[in-house]
Amino acid sequence: MIQSVGSEAEFSLDSRLAADCFLVTDMALSRVLLMNDSRYPWLILVPRRANIREIHHLTPENQTSLFEEMMRVSELLQTEFLPTKMNVGALGNIVSQLHVHIIARNEGDPAWPGPVWGHSTASAYPDDRSEKLIEDLASKLG
Amino acid sequence: MIQSVGSEAEFSLDSRLAADCFLVTDMALSRVLLMNDSRYPWLILVPRRANIREIHHLTPENQTSLFEEMMRVSELLQTEFLPTKMNVGALGNIVSQLHVHIIARNEGDPAWPGPVWGHSTASAYPDDRSEKLIEDLASKLG
Repeated sequence: MIQSVGSEAEFSLDSRLAADCFLVTDMALSRVLLMNDSRYPWLILVPRRANIREIHHLTPENQTSLFEEMMRVSELLQTEFLPTKMNVGALGNIVSQLHVHIIARNEGDPAWPGPVWGHSTASAYPDDRSEKLIEDLASKLG
Repeated sequence: MIQSVGSEAEFSLDSRLAADCFLVTDMALSRVLLMNDSRYPWLILVPRRANIREIHHLTPENQTSLFEEMMRVSELLQTEFLPTKMNVGALGNIVSQLHVHIIARNEGDPAWPGPVWGHSTASAYPDDRSEKLIEDLASKLG
């Protein structure tokens, strides 16, 4: 099978990301997801390009767009949640589709000061809280 | 005490980063460090700007430089070490001075598939191996 690397038309969201997250909105390049873990304000940017595993495999134009979107989302979470520290990371050891985590961390949160990845089982949002948060974030990123 | 935010003259490397890492080289914006953990090819970029904790607190020009340097270092580690996956992250929950980790991960490395941060005690390089690696990386980033 020939794989189109970087195609937008052939992009589809990894099934594990789809299962673990809510859709917030689409920015120019990236799909914005909210991780369904109410313990941390945690967004994930997924560039809508097929078969890309690493940031440096994006075209230079797409890299620039991704960085701009990362900064915009970081600033939004900083303003909304006043965290102790932002954590930004692209790991992908389990889900290899390129995705960038942007997480507002607070001293005393369950994983503090360690990383959230692999720390403990997610605690799902109550429906009304996730709906309100998604609507608010989507309107501010739209 | 008045703190100069973003000053290059007043930058000094955090003492914990200095203790845990070797100096590789200075790029246009960032000091490049090699983490003294022989289990992972692991570089750290520290923008030489005082009192900056978050990427989005850098000036737009410095952000652009940092992203370019991150991509250059990612590509270098990918070419040199042919890793399963690059891990890129700015956390700073313990050392708040802005620093970006770029780590070449391999299936089967000690922390795989989890993150390396906080996983286990570093395993120092033998002197001759770190010297050779630093010289090689510095020449390729210089």
